[in-house]
Amino acid sequence: MAAASNFFSIVAGVGAGTGRSVALKFAQVYPVVLLARNPSNYEAIVSEIKASGGHAIGVATDVSSPQSVVNAFSEIDREFGGKRLAAAIYNVGGRFVRKPFLELTLEEYEAGYEANGKGFFLFAQAVLPLLLDSVKESHHPPSLIITGATASLRGSANMSSFASGKFALRATAQSLAREFGPQGVHVAHAIIDGVIDIPRTKEWMVDAGPDAKINSDAIADSYWYLHTQPRSHFTQELDIRPYVEKF
Amino acid sequence: MAAASNFFSIVAGVGAGTGRSVALKFAQVYPVVLLARNPSNYEAIVSEIKASGGHAIGVATDVSSPQSVVNAFSEIDREFGGKRLAAAIYNVGGRFVRKPFLELTLEEYEAGYEANGKGFFLFAQAVLPLLLDSVKESHHPPSLIITGATASLRGSANMSSFASGKFALRATAQSLAREFGPQGVHVAHAIIDGVIDIPRTKEWMVDAGPDAKINSDAIADSYWYLHTQPRSHFTQELDIRPYVEKF
Amino acid sequence: MAAASNFFSIVAGVGAGTGRSVALKFAQVYPVVLLARNPSNYEAIVSEIKASGGHAIGVATDVSSPQSVVNAFSEIDREFGGKRLAAAIYNVGGRFVRKPFLELTLEEYEAGYEANGKGFFLFAQAVLPLLLDSVKESHHPPSLIITGATASLRGSANMSSFASGKFALRATAQSLAREFGPQGVHVAHAIIDGVIDIPRTKEWMVDAGPDAKINSDAIADSYWYLHTQPRSHFTQELDIRPYVEKF
Amino acid sequence: MAAASNFFSIVAGVGAGTGRSVALKFAQVYPVVLLARNPSNYEAIVSEIKASGGHAIGVATDVSSPQSVVNAFSEIDREFGGKRLAAAIYNVGGRFVRKPFLELTLEEYEAGYEANGKGFFLFAQAVLPLLLDSVKESHHPPSLIITGATASLRGSANMSSFASGKFALRATAQSLAREFGPQGVHVAHAIIDGVIDIPRTKEWMVDAGPDAKINSDAIADSYWYLHTQPRSHFTQELDIRPYVEKF
Repeated sequence: MAAASNFFSIVAGVGAGTGRSVALKFAQVYPVVLLARNPSNYEAIVSEIKASGGHAIGVATDVSSPQSVVNAFSEIDREFGGKRLAAAIYNVGGRFVRKPFLELTLEEYEAGYEANGKGFFLFAQAVLPLLLDSVKESHHPPSLIITGATASLRGSANMSSFASGKFALRATAQSLAREFGPQGVHVAHAIIDGVIDIPRTKEWMVDAGPDAKINSDAIADSYWYLHTQPRSHFTQELDIRPYVEKF
Repeated sequence: MAAASNFFSIVAGVGAGTGRSVALKFAQVYPVVLLARNPSNYEAIVSEIKASGGHAIGVATDVSSPQSVVNAFSEIDREFGGKRLAAAIYNVGGRFVRKPFLELTLEEYEAGYEANGKGFFLFAQAVLPLLLDSVKESHHPPSLIITGATASLRGSANMSSFASGKFALRATAQSLAREFGPQGVHVAHAIIDGVIDIPRTKEWMVDAGPDAKINSDAIADSYWYLHTQPRSHFTQELDIRPYVEKF
Repeated sequence: MAAASNFFSIVAGVGAGTGRSVALKFAQVYPVVLLARNPSNYEAIVSEIKASGGHAIGVATDVSSPQSVVNAFSEIDREFGGKRLAAAIYNVGGRFVRKPFLELTLEEYEAGYEANGKGFFLFAQAVLPLLLDSVKESHHPPSLIITGATASLRGSANMSSFASGKFALRATAQSLAREFGPQGVHVAHAIIDGVIDIPRTKEWMVDAGPDAKINSDAIADSYWYLHTQPRSHFTQELDIRPYVEKF
Repeated sequence: MAAASNFFSIVAGVGAGTGRSVALKFAQVYPVVLLARNPSNYEAIVSEIKASGGHAIGVATDVSSPQSVVNAFSEIDREFGGKRLAAAIYNVGGRFVRKPFLELTLEEYEAGYEANGKGFFLFAQAVLPLLLDSVKESHHPPSLIITGATASLRGSANMSSFASGKFALRATAQSLAREFGPQGVHVAHAIIDGVIDIPRTKEWMVDAGPDAKINSDAIADSYWYLHTQPRSHFTQELDIRPYVEKF
């Protein structure tokens, strides 16, 4: 079994919340590649990781573009070709559209699938061969961890765009868990059912009292916990919600 | 309330099985528009309906092409513009791909969504305004009935293409039921969990004994039953499987 | 195949709503046995069926008492021993307790299971041998149809008594469907998600407009539809809710 | 906030597998009370905990007997009355009956509910007031963690006894999560979908290769992880299965 320093991790979809917390958490053990469409989403996080002694790079990537994903993984290979992939986290939110169905354009409806169907397909096809290569070497089973939402389980009114994408993502996650789990890769899907506490949601739920919004560092802890599960004990799905959240 | 003869129905996705049976069933009461990409899929059914005294037209339509859908509904308007839409059935199977994930092309993966996500979106946007227009007039609540599958509930290994499409379809169906149900349109989703007894499946499950494959006329009966439910008693989802099917 | 007059049906749990409507519906084709703890719950229905030319008897039965169930089926055997059982409907509501968990007595908590676990077990053990005997003879597959509720799928706050019973009922219904379905008996579970329009609920939801409560005659139609499904096309579960119901 | 030494924990249902591992894990931080019907199930574990410097007592308890539960909690109060309850784990398996439905006695059918319905009710009523009392003081939100099974989600053929009990348990767990979560108590339900690696299952699945059975120490880690989640991030349900398990 190889030392942790021979491994690296990838987080797709970083910004102010879950992606940043997950990157910081995994960076405590592995070098981290941060993917985001816009470098402004990862630059500060890369600096933060480096400042605390970790190793990170950012790669500007549009996960729903095949060419962009190819380019990103070429760059990853140049940087980390000698290391093995320990964990890949898919946390791409995509564009969120909430609208009466008859007011949606096709492009707005497809935004959900673009990020959560097509984007995840391209990402998963790029990382799974690398994760399979790590099975025999890695301390923890190589992991593909996926961020879902309330809309992964429920198609609410005015939410057909987001829900169709998140349902498609969950279908693919299940299919991959059934195909790659027996090969030793851990595919886990987390249903985030609540508002994440980030600057953009500062004014939300202010009357609900403390801790009514999810601390994204706790999500990072749960993803790390999932990553460290042994193969005799894989969790395929868990839900996450604040104690005051209605469900 | 208007006579049944002032109404018509649309069945998208006709071939040898469910689509044909549903068209024949609804044609006993309403004129029927049959949509299929290939006229050879509907021509014999149109003839069959006409021969038994019903009224039917076929319109060659690719439901995943916006322009093709626009053209189809223009033709429908020319033919049935004076009538109201009583029922729209979405039974488009799309291309079925079953493959190890890493062997899928993007185009193969997207085939599931193409038919069950994008195609359904375009169809639903075209029929929902017509169904809403029928609410006050129709005897039975105007209905949008959707064909699902085992893969609507479960992402099996090697089935990510089909399952991601069917999950997306179910998400959208739920969202529409919650938005349009309170406006009087009945949106129902049927999970077909078994093999349908059609010429193509003749040699399948021959050892399972009689009735081990679903008689598509029974599916037509169930869709008609769904259509005739009163608005105080809408079924949003039901499953359908042969008595010997494992589940 | 025998004539319908050689068959009979049983409805357990009759009162003002679903049970009465189901009994009236099935009485159009089969003699009906009505079971209720209190004869006042079935006497008027028996009279109503007789007045319209049908055949019905009532048997005072506490389905959660083994001896009472034995007595009831002895009486049923005396009355209908020469006929075969076509359908058995379990519609026993039991005592409904809605309370903060720490205020429940054990007896109150167990009320849910008493009716929906134990009572259904005793009823199912009595009717399944009769239904199996009918498989070869009956026109429609012999049917065991079970009334569930919102609480069959969701344990809400203060609802642990009712939900634990309804969950247990659904578990048993699924188990029976998997065991007896392949033998030709149709086991179906209906999730009634809404208020039924009966005298007791007259003042409920009055602001929700017409048809906001379920017409129990429509439930009877759905149970009849389930009974008449051919064995190539069994529905194991369907939901039922008014068009305005939130879900 | 009080020191961990002012807290204690309770594990109901200990034996060779999950219960023992959970007790050993929680004993690293809290004194532990072990409940089992038969002292031989906890005596060796109590010794093991003491030998490693922890504090544990065993109390012979039949959780489905109200009097036995009252007695147990009197003894617990005598021993730990000055401490607060940090975590209560319900891991009672009960008697497992797998039989064709028509061969079940009522007593056999009810065995599932006896342990997972009635027994859990009595346990939960005893521990919830203690957990509520700990909310303000404890470092981690006081936790009620419950062991479910495949049969919590699926009523398989011949499994009506076990499944009805596990469904009832899940219903009650959900109801408690919705009632007590907003008060700060974490109620979590773990679905164990696989065989646990204990002496009794030594000869099971020997051809499935290493790690095909769940290591119960990993379950203990997951229960500890659940216990340490902050209240902004509660997991209500997770599944656990070996990497080779079909699902």
